[in-house]
Order: sequence, then structure tokens, then C-alpha cells
Amino acid sequence: MPDHAHEPLDDREVLAACRVHSDTALADHDPRATFGWDKDAAKDRFRIVADEVSELQKRLFAADERALLMVLQGIDAGGKGGTIRSVMNRLNPAGVSVHGFGVPSDEERAHDFLWRIHDHAPERGKIAVFDRSHYEDVLVVRVKDLVPEPVWRKRYEHIRNFEELLDDEGTTVVKFFLDVSKEKQRERLQDRIDDPDERWKFRKGDLDDRVMWDDYQAAFQEALRETSTDAAPWYVVPGDRKWVRNLVVALALRHHLEQIGPEYPPAEEDIDGLVVE
Amino acid sequence: MPDHAHEPLDDREVLAACRVHSDTALADHDPRATFGWDKDAAKDRFRIVADEVSELQKRLFAADERALLMVLQGIDAGGKGGTIRSVMNRLNPAGVSVHGFGVPSDEERAHDFLWRIHDHAPERGKIAVFDRSHYEDVLVVRVKDLVPEPVWRKRYEHIRNFEELLDDEGTTVVKFFLDVSKEKQRERLQDRIDDPDERWKFRKGDLDDRVMWDDYQAAFQEALRETSTDAAPWYVVPGDRKWVRNLVVALALRHHLEQIGPEYPPAEEDIDGLVVE
Repeated sequence: MPDHAHEPLDDREVLAACRVHSDTALADHDPRATFGWDKDAAKDRFRIVADEVSELQKRLFAADERALLMVLQGIDAGGKGGTIRSVMNRLNPAGVSVHGFGVPSDEERAHDFLWRIHDHAPERGKIAVFDRSHYEDVLVVRVKDLVPEPVWRKRYEHIRNFEELLDDEGTTVVKFFLDVSKEKQRERLQDRIDDPDERWKFRKGDLDDRVMWDDYQAAFQEALRETSTDAAPWYVVPGDRKWVRNLVVALALRHHLEQIGPEYPPAEEDIDGLVVE
Repeated sequence: MPDHAHEPLDDREVLAACRVHSDTALADHDPRATFGWDKDAAKDRFRIVADEVSELQKRLFAADERALLMVLQGIDAGGKGGTIRSVMNRLNPAGVSVHGFGVPSDEERAHDFLWRIHDHAPERGKIAVFDRSHYEDVLVVRVKDLVPEPVWRKRYEHIRNFEELLDDEGTTVVKFFLDVSKEKQRERLQDRIDDPDERWKFRKGDLDDRVMWDDYQAAFQEALRETSTDAAPWYVVPGDRKWVRNLVVALALRHHLEQIGPEYPPAEEDIDGLVVE
């Protein structure tokens, strides 16, 4: 924590505060954190940062050298869909693919847990967004005891190795855990039930997961600690306030795209001064 | 043509005017047409119609019954990329996939011409956008004489059958030809050359295609006539003015989504009045 905690944090400090390390405790992260930001100013800044992300995406696409994979995890009603809508729809849709990973199909289950994931990795120049991901295989699988512990426990290393492969071969991996309080989840689930246009999204099974809240938090915390690497860092994003969440995600995307530093490729030779007839 | 050609056309008349029939002549379509619209008013209307398309997309996604495939064809600098950026990025990116079809890979060429296309057909609930498509196999392939005429000529029927299959099995197909004048293409290609950030997009080969302008127009006209069906209609979109183009595409998408008429699915039983603890 910086000395002047009452002053707004700068962008670097915010990302540092959200970044997961091997001793990160979710209990130390406040889902209602604002980093000293004013709401209206943060919304204005979000639009500016999102436009910068959009410009960087154009260059990423043009350069056609590296890709970016954004992984989104969180509980039901944690805001994964809203984050995708808010942040990604300011980008050129031709350069973005979004894939939601649900319960595996029979064919997917007949392979190792990374098989279906690898298939959706982005091609050079593109940004892929995973709404849920291979992390379900150390989260729900663990909490619901779907595979034995020795199997899911070894997956941390498989995940680290896989993500290092992606990074080394040209895909930058950035991962976000949307950190929502139990009270905020209650409120959002209730809103779903009460809104006729949203009610179809609600499954009574969502409440079973809510009963296992502490088990999920423990599983998230261990998974984040075990797999937040320089090649593929995790960020804990305060999720109760959408305007904070959106700005943090945009800042992190901008940071990692700047690290890639994509540039427009050179034109073909002898084009300078060419006149089209 | 309606009697009062000096009055703005209504939406139905615009779509009817753009719709391709078996006797459509591209020469009768004006790339600079405005349908009597005022520019500022049309831009405002575009935002309204795009929001309606966005609401229909939410229902399409929720209903999870039908999909929509949007095919975009046109010459280089015809505005395919700009149309995708303008129209599609008002939609939820989680429900949209965009795929550009370039020169086929060795593996793709080892199969029939619809093999790679079928692979990218949208799943239920989704909208897929094809930036170029299977139509290249009756366009560039014909103009550049890449396969014998008896082969590409039979493809019209294969395409009609394939698109009817998609429609019957749940995917509505809507196709847009972006109709740009030769002078406007000259202007846009020149802008690309003169803009350092755009120059990388320019290929000298683009000028070779321009020399074969009339051949391409003839190939487009025949392909449109042969494959504009009730199951998968073509629209000729006036492409010289972006604000006309965007509004026409949005109107057609809205029309075809309304034809699908997606509704939010019913909630699970016993949810009414449920209180989340």
C-alpha cells in the first residue's frame, strides 16, 4: 500500500495493487475498492483508456506478430458478461473473438482438459476473450469433487507450462478474477429473478454454488496464487462497482498491449508517391 | 421505383429497392444513392436502429434457437471492414464472430470450396459475419480463371443448396454487396497510400484488380442474380457514402432479426417470487 492512501493511486499503483502474488489473500482485497477515484471522472477516463486500447488493437492487428488472450473468471453474476460488453465492444469486432466455456461436451471430456482450450487460442494479430476457461478444471471440479485431488492438483503446473508456451510462441496472456462480495452477488441474483427480461438467465443451481461460497473462494485463491506468473499474471479486479471494474480491466489491457508495443508494418516498396488512376 | 421519388423512402421501400432479383442490373443501382435521407438525421436514425438490432441480438442469444449469418462482399476498399466496425461493434461481442476468408490454405484447397465456410457457420443464438466468403469462388476464381468455367458455374447451385440447408436448419442468411463507384475506390485507395497508418493495407496487386473492374462487376452481377433467394437474399448497398451504407445494413439486419422474432425463454419453474438469501 502506498503512503498516501487517501490520494488517488496512479495507474501503475492500481495495477500493482491488483496483481496476484504467491501470498495474495483474497480477504485483503476489497470488492468495493475505488482507489480514490471519483465515479464520473473514472467513467470519462474509461472512455479515453478504451480508445487507447482500441488504437493499440489496430496496431496489434496490423503488425500481425503477437496475439493477446484475456481470461475472465468469477462467480455467477460476477460481471463477466458485462465486462465483455463494456470493454470489448469498443474494439474492432473483426479483431476480437469471445468464447464461453460451459460444461464440457462428451468429445471434450474424452480429451485432456487443455484440448478444447488450445483450440480457441487466438491467432496472431487477434484478441481472444475466454468467458470461463481451463481454470474451471481447478475450480468447480475441485469444489464439486469431480476428479481426485492428485489429478486437479497437478493441473496447476500443466496450466503454468501451457501459458508459458503461449507467451513464448507469441500470445500474451492476461487473467482477471472479478472479485464480487457475497452481498453484491445476492443483490444481482435477486435482480435477475425480479427482471422478466433477465429471469431466463437464472438457474436454481446458482444458489447451490452460493452455499459453497467459502469453498469457491478458497479454490480461487489457491488457483490464482499457483498460476500468476510473469508470463501470465492474474489481477484481482474489484467487482462490486462496474465503473471501477471496467477501468481496471481497460488499464491492464492497455498496459499489456503497450508491453507488446505493436507497430504498423512497413508498406510494400515503391508505394510512396504512387498515384491511383 | 415509388411514385414520389422526391420524398424519402420508408424502410420497407429502401430494402425493396436494394433487394436483388434474377434480373437485377448493377448499372441501375447508384453507389451514391441517399434515398432522400438527410445526412445528420440518417446518422441519428442509424444509432436508434443499431440499438434495436442490439436488443434483438440479446433475444436471439437468449432464445438460443436460430442463428444469423451475414455475408459481406465487395471490392478492395469497398468498406467491408468499416461496415463491420460501425454496425457490429454496437452489438454484444460475446454473440458475434467475424471471420475473414483470405486465399485458401493448402488444407482448405484440398477440400471442396464450402468446407472451410461450413466450419465457420454460427452456432444457435449467435451472429457470424463473413468478410468475403464462398462467393470468392465464383468471383476472383472466375475473373482470374483459376478453375474451369464448368466447375465454377455449377457452384451457383451448390451455393443455393448450401444456404437453403442453413436456413432450414436454423441459420438465417443475409448477404450484402457493398456497391462502390470506380471513382470512390480510386479516392479510398489513394487515401490509403497517403496515410502512413493505413499504407500497410495497400497491395500493388489491388491495382491489378482495378484494371479488371468490368470483369468483376459482371461476375458480381451474375453471382448476385443466381444466388439471391428467399432463403438467402442479397442486398446491393450504396457504398460511396458511409452513413447511407451503415443505415441500410442496420435496417436489413433489423428486418431479418424481426422475421426470426426471438423471445426470451421462460424461466425455470417456481422462480417467481424467489428470494435469494
